[in-house]
Amino acid sequence: MALTLVIGNKNYSSWSMRPWLALKATGIAFDEVVIPLYTGDADRQRILDVTRSGKVPALVDGNVTVWDSLAIIEYAAERFPDARLWPQDVVARAHARSVSAEMHSSFMALRNECGMNIHRPIGPKKLSDDARANIARIQQIWTECRAQYGGQGPYLFGAFSGADAMFAPVIHRFRTYAIDVTPPVRAYMDTMLANAAFQEWTSGALAETLVIEKFEID
Amino acid sequence: MALTLVIGNKNYSSWSMRPWLALKATGIAFDEVVIPLYTGDADRQRILDVTRSGKVPALVDGNVTVWDSLAIIEYAAERFPDARLWPQDVVARAHARSVSAEMHSSFMALRNECGMNIHRPIGPKKLSDDARANIARIQQIWTECRAQYGGQGPYLFGAFSGADAMFAPVIHRFRTYAIDVTPPVRAYMDTMLANAAFQEWTSGALAETLVIEKFEID
Repeated sequence: MALTLVIGNKNYSSWSMRPWLALKATGIAFDEVVIPLYTGDADRQRILDVTRSGKVPALVDGNVTVWDSLAIIEYAAERFPDARLWPQDVVARAHARSVSAEMHSSFMALRNECGMNIHRPIGPKKLSDDARANIARIQQIWTECRAQYGGQGPYLFGAFSGADAMFAPVIHRFRTYAIDVTPPVRAYMDTMLANAAFQEWTSGALAETLVIEKFEID
Repeated sequence: MALTLVIGNKNYSSWSMRPWLALKATGIAFDEVVIPLYTGDADRQRILDVTRSGKVPALVDGNVTVWDSLAIIEYAAERFPDARLWPQDVVARAHARSVSAEMHSSFMALRNECGMNIHRPIGPKKLSDDARANIARIQQIWTECRAQYGGQGPYLFGAFSGADAMFAPVIHRFRTYAIDVTPPVRAYMDTMLANAAFQEWTSGALAETLVIEKFEID
């Protein structure tokens, strides 16, 4: 039986994008169920029927239900070891998990001020000092990973990993809000923008017609 | 060579408490280094010398450095399989990772309004609707886990696991801010309050004399 990944709108749901991309980019087959967010009680109940957390993403695999982006990636990494969602080397794997968890728990200012909104016209906006500090730290993470693992491939840890999936929505944010980045960061962004799974998500987002007003403030 | 766990003040640093408790409660030996938070540039630099994230907790294990509470727990679970930081059963393990990741990424209102402050006199404070919703959801998580796995032991998934470590600071928050809880939730809190490692952290916190004014607002 195939896995089922329940996600929100592709244009806005950055948490959904992460495990979707982790599975898709590493060739793990799954059925996708999109439940639009903030459309009312019926859709809210559809999510609650899958997970009492009431939040997407959630993955159903037979009698297993797992929710939250990072838990889904950990589950998939264990269930499909050939997908190599984490680096094989123990030092690199600890590093990949550290930056993935840092993405998962941090960067609130950037997340609040530069929500993922793939169909937004590209252009800058005024950012707080905190958001700018978030951007600097993310660039530092990516640059250090690329400096260390660049010889092994074009992604953060050489081959595509869960860490690339965790940071993927930030690629869209940096692009959409025209964030000024260093050349090594630009090169990494170009790698991700050229990834077939990343492009498939983006096309899906651009094909959506539902607009959520509260995410269209700027 | 022993592991070294770098943590912040035990009274306030809820993120530090999580991996500390995960290691201590499962008998994984480690050296502890406490770096007081918000005391100035020298201490900030000591943290940066361990991890460029600039944040505690961080674990150093030979040539491995891993930071962020959840990444440390994942690392320790892999490095010390006998500690059984995650349940052995695949369904329970997915569940434990889901609620741990939900704790890691969510409950902002509760975290902001009821900061962990172990030496604070016990008493209620006025909470927002969002914080009350957070409290309800956490009680639901604990109650469902206890209903499902209660036959296997007194913790969330029977035996002590990384999920108990991830929620441990919430035990202090519920106690300190005199949150009204259901009897099953109270029983789980009593289990955690009686845990030797939990008590050791709490004693350490109460022995600290450093007061951080911005965490003493109410």
